[in-house]
Amino acid sequence: MDEERTGAWWGRRAWALLSAVRERSPLVQCITNLVSMDIAANALTAAGASPAMLHCLREIPDFTPRCHAVYINVGTLSEDWLPSMRAAASAGRPWVLDPVAAAASGFRMEACLELLALRPAVVRGNASEILALATRSDSSTSFKGVDSSHDSGEALQAAKALAWSSGAVIAVSGAVDFITDGEQVLSASNGVAMMQKITATGCAVTALIAAFVGADPSDALAAAACALAIFGLAGEIGMESAKGPASLRMHLIDALYGLDEQTVTSGVKIALLP
Amino acid sequence: MDEERTGAWWGRRAWALLSAVRERSPLVQCITNLVSMDIAANALTAAGASPAMLHCLREIPDFTPRCHAVYINVGTLSEDWLPSMRAAASAGRPWVLDPVAAAASGFRMEACLELLALRPAVVRGNASEILALATRSDSSTSFKGVDSSHDSGEALQAAKALAWSSGAVIAVSGAVDFITDGEQVLSASNGVAMMQKITATGCAVTALIAAFVGADPSDALAAAACALAIFGLAGEIGMESAKGPASLRMHLIDALYGLDEQTVTSGVKIALLP
Amino acid sequence: MDEERTGAWWGRRAWALLSAVRERSPLVQCITNLVSMDIAANALTAAGASPAMLHCLREIPDFTPRCHAVYINVGTLSEDWLPSMRAAASAGRPWVLDPVAAAASGFRMEACLELLALRPAVVRGNASEILALATRSDSSTSFKGVDSSHDSGEALQAAKALAWSSGAVIAVSGAVDFITDGEQVLSASNGVAMMQKITATGCAVTALIAAFVGADPSDALAAAACALAIFGLAGEIGMESAKGPASLRMHLIDALYGLDEQTVTSGVKIALLP
Repeated sequence: MDEERTGAWWGRRAWALLSAVRERSPLVQCITNLVSMDIAANALTAAGASPAMLHCLREIPDFTPRCHAVYINVGTLSEDWLPSMRAAASAGRPWVLDPVAAAASGFRMEACLELLALRPAVVRGNASEILALATRSDSSTSFKGVDSSHDSGEALQAAKALAWSSGAVIAVSGAVDFITDGEQVLSASNGVAMMQKITATGCAVTALIAAFVGADPSDALAAAACALAIFGLAGEIGMESAKGPASLRMHLIDALYGLDEQTVTSGVKIALLP
Repeated sequence: MDEERTGAWWGRRAWALLSAVRERSPLVQCITNLVSMDIAANALTAAGASPAMLHCLREIPDFTPRCHAVYINVGTLSEDWLPSMRAAASAGRPWVLDPVAAAASGFRMEACLELLALRPAVVRGNASEILALATRSDSSTSFKGVDSSHDSGEALQAAKALAWSSGAVIAVSGAVDFITDGEQVLSASNGVAMMQKITATGCAVTALIAAFVGADPSDALAAAACALAIFGLAGEIGMESAKGPASLRMHLIDALYGLDEQTVTSGVKIALLP
Repeated sequence: MDEERTGAWWGRRAWALLSAVRERSPLVQCITNLVSMDIAANALTAAGASPAMLHCLREIPDFTPRCHAVYINVGTLSEDWLPSMRAAASAGRPWVLDPVAAAASGFRMEACLELLALRPAVVRGNASEILALATRSDSSTSFKGVDSSHDSGEALQAAKALAWSSGAVIAVSGAVDFITDGEQVLSASNGVAMMQKITATGCAVTALIAAFVGADPSDALAAAACALAIFGLAGEIGMESAKGPASLRMHLIDALYGLDEQTVTSGVKIALLP
């Protein structure tokens, strides 16, 4: 990256990507957990994308090749959905993985590692998830559920190593998000703490990453950083009107829908780490 | 239809049907997609109906005969749910089909056509879905996802033909909704554009059609038109307070719950096409 | 219970339990119906608990023992989920059962009775559900759907008998909630009628009971009563700003998140029946 990639450059890049999503309305196949379907679909729609929750194995040969991107999330993994995840991930479209609670069980960790081998463009998880994936550990006694028990910074080296070994861009969410392709590391610093009190915001932002990758597959690192920053920015704007997590959820989606150029270019906080 | 069926006549008819739903609280079995369950159930409840999301094949012989209507939606179709859809559609209750993204795959088109042969009272889809069903085509290169890529008017002849061949009332949603039994054509013109930015509003309104049919099975054409108009009217009222799609969703459901006689009779826009 | 257990005593107890949930953030595995996942997860998160919707049989041996409590809800029961429900209920963690629409079918009643034999700490249902369970009847012609067609008081004797036979605390929801271990009976009188117009509030409050039991497994009777009262209290506060069921849902979750000591200790209405 050249020196021009200042904060203002990233603001313009984020706006260009959001505009591309709005114009191209990328069709994003989502094989996601049962809890997140509502918020993920509504976040994608509000951003301008076209979500399609479709998990039937028999439909994938017909449907997935028509999609601009695929989003796979293991939050409510089951044996009968895993073959569909494998098939959709193998269909030749750019795809994004959310390894929710990767360490919750040996079965889940194995599924995540198998999916990781199918070359996602981006993996987005919290620090605990990325650490677990990088160390292939499902026996962590520190497993505390779907929320992270680590700061994103603690997972940065693990994220770099995972990016190297998998070929994917790795995004670690947290108070500051880190996004890396194994060489470059971007930080994205938008968002508010209360977003963690809304179920499945992590799932929703990973879906948004898939939409951004679908709208412009040429630079998954930038797509992931910009999607994270824009979702966080919508949370910041939503927080101005929120009185708790449920109203924040509503205002966040409204804000995502209403984002304009000035707000995005001036509000996005992305930086290249030295 | 006689000449008395003016706009005012339809307003009174819509109010009578909504009142019947509120009084009889029809039990509506929903076998619907995983994304729409929350909004469909809440829309039904707000309208006064009693939704029951129940898809287990073994429960259908006991449960479905007790229902006033059945709602079947193929949005997240799977091989294991299809037998339940068949069984519920065959249980002798009036039922309504939502052929979400009918052209998404050969498997889905085949399932939709099979269900269509089980004599739904009403089929509600967007123009692309109705066109696909009428032409039995799942290979449309114009398939763009779950949203329509056609205006409702483009599907009007297809809807008439489909009504003739299937015996069902066919409702085509759009900026103007068209509802036909193959002979008469009604238009319903309520609603606001932003409703399309809320995931699964189409699924929710089809569920509402099922409730209206359940409350008064004698005239599925009127039930479908009135449910579409009333849902759209709730959207219009909700839009007065909305700042984006998420707040519109909330205000729409609130408005549906609070509709009164004056608002319905004066607000519903239904007409018989010449 | 001694005579000190006045209303004020219960207010302090409820606050202590809510504080325990916020401090310990109990991990609550939820195998719940597809409609309630969003509201149940968000209610748990807003209360300070850590929900994990996880229903895969192969994950249960690894995952369930790490949980503080398990929540099982049969609302969208299916043959493939029932083995997971059995396994999670048998994993040695305190668990709570929501027998949604227990009388909907013979299959469902059988499943509920089988689960009941696996010794839940608490069962929470409406009056119709508790009456059906206590009489093991799935052929009630009075079955009207998932909503109760009986007042909670009508089910009080049935609840006592069911508590005796099952060893579980039985909670009957209604305008007044009754909670009994077969000997003592508590009443909880918080809440507003419109909460019944929000889909899955019953499911959400049962999830909250599981969180309270997870935070303090020593007294399931108190945990159930306090969770019911606190959820109802959040509904009362939410109702001050609500304009219908959808805005009530939002304000209720916001209120649950924001509850403070003064509000809880003075607002909770729990009493020991003589």
